[in-house]
Amino acid sequence: MPTRIFGDIPGIPEGSEFDNRIMLSQYGVHRPRQAGISGSQTEGADSIVLSGGYEDDEDLGDEIIYTGHGGRSIETGLQVADQQLARQNLALAINCQRGLPVRVIRGYHHRSPHSPIEGYRYDGLYRVDSYWRERGRSGFFVWRFRLVKLVTVNATNQVNEEQSAYGMTKRVETTVQRIVRNTELAILVKEIYDYQCQVCRTQVMTSAGLYAEAAHIQPLGRPHNGPDTLTNLLCLCPNHHVMFDFGGFGIADDLNLIGLDGQLFQRSNHKVSAQYLQYHREHFLLSN
Amino acid sequence: MPTRIFGDIPGIPEGSEFDNRIMLSQYGVHRPRQAGISGSQTEGADSIVLSGGYEDDEDLGDEIIYTGHGGRSIETGLQVADQQLARQNLALAINCQRGLPVRVIRGYHHRSPHSPIEGYRYDGLYRVDSYWRERGRSGFFVWRFRLVKLVTVNATNQVNEEQSAYGMTKRVETTVQRIVRNTELAILVKEIYDYQCQVCRTQVMTSAGLYAEAAHIQPLGRPHNGPDTLTNLLCLCPNHHVMFDFGGFGIADDLNLIGLDGQLFQRSNHKVSAQYLQYHREHFLLSN
Repeated sequence: MPTRIFGDIPGIPEGSEFDNRIMLSQYGVHRPRQAGISGSQTEGADSIVLSGGYEDDEDLGDEIIYTGHGGRSIETGLQVADQQLARQNLALAINCQRGLPVRVIRGYHHRSPHSPIEGYRYDGLYRVDSYWRERGRSGFFVWRFRLVKLVTVNATNQVNEEQSAYGMTKRVETTVQRIVRNTELAILVKEIYDYQCQVCRTQVMTSAGLYAEAAHIQPLGRPHNGPDTLTNLLCLCPNHHVMFDFGGFGIADDLNLIGLDGQLFQRSNHKVSAQYLQYHREHFLLSN
Repeated sequence: MPTRIFGDIPGIPEGSEFDNRIMLSQYGVHRPRQAGISGSQTEGADSIVLSGGYEDDEDLGDEIIYTGHGGRSIETGLQVADQQLARQNLALAINCQRGLPVRVIRGYHHRSPHSPIEGYRYDGLYRVDSYWRERGRSGFFVWRFRLVKLVTVNATNQVNEEQSAYGMTKRVETTVQRIVRNTELAILVKEIYDYQCQVCRTQVMTSAGLYAEAAHIQPLGRPHNGPDTLTNLLCLCPNHHVMFDFGGFGIADDLNLIGLDGQLFQRSNHKVSAQYLQYHREHFLLSN
């Protein structure tokens, strides 16, 4: 089983067309020949095919409300039971939590002005913005995923400034390869700690499993220019991530916390570098 | 003292020019006649003037690294002491935490290719992306603020999908008036609770003061279309905000928590509406 590739498949640009599902599978754009969602509930979903299956889908082009999998009769195709947040549906929820992109392929069966007239077209990368459950037209619960097209920027060092709904703002590099690479390291540091915060050992539980955040100690990007390496990453709960980024506490070279009681929890297979801790203290902590 | 206006001054479009600081003040674009930062450390900063004061400023047009106030000799203008995160500097940090926009005015003294040749020009709204301390060229600590120009979208219902650095994604309406209006309600609910989480009573402390998040119970925007009202808002810590948005817990009509022990803390001057709690349970909670 080949590794699951998140992001563009090398050599297959957006807009590439394919005669049928077998070709899509052979080129690795969407491997399963039947299922609409390619993914696993531990890794996330790497691709989906929109091919007119679900009555509840909505396709606005750059935004898609995608209906999850399951609960339909094999004979009639009608929804006869509630969908579960499991398997491929959970895979898409994992994408949302981890910021993983999903390849979107539209098929000629898909009822949308954005569909190709024949065959299948790779329409680029989307992120899973949010997911929720609702009663579909059938009266049964379906899971719905809001997919939003990723804008890709190819210029080196080009950055896209974005703002969350809560007023905290972050710098995001939007070149897709960077998103994926950053995401892989972020997932790694979170897995090392089993999604436990290195400060308070909290594990934040959601409907799609445990949630934690990967925090850069010396921030990426100008003028801080911290490296995107494991030695510059922490696994934190959202509360301690906000506090760390905004000077609520620091970490001494011996890993004692400054401004909070206790010590940074560190596993033997992860060592942060003292130089990044020092950079953080000097630039973000009020008194050191 | 007139109310501090965050956002555009009605009737003064971006690009408006002014002969001098007195006019800037009279039109309400930048009220103080001397200070570079107009703001208070409880409300935030409503405007700044770039006029060549600090040797450490960097101006890339849509991105400005702005140096804070203080520590300079009145006689020589040279940096002779560390800057403090207080008064106007703290005001700009408050903008960062609360998502408040700041008006940027460039003056002819400002050493930048983006400056006007004479007088002062109102150059639109910026958000404070981040702030930190560093040693300036003088060797003393200065506070630095990364300002990023806000893109304003005037079409009704136009939305801008944005993604945080941590993979959690949010829908943000970018019409500036909306940003400001949403921000005011968000600040209000946080002040009602003195920045305590309504679930765990945690107050998250940062270098710019207490931090909490305003969470919509029934989300804004299509297809949820929750209202932007106090009855649809909670004051939560970041951890419980993530958990709430991603189905980690729900709230029963009697305010008992579902999926967590305890009850939602509610003050007598704030009542959430049961219909939004029900919407959240039905759409986001796995089992109710």
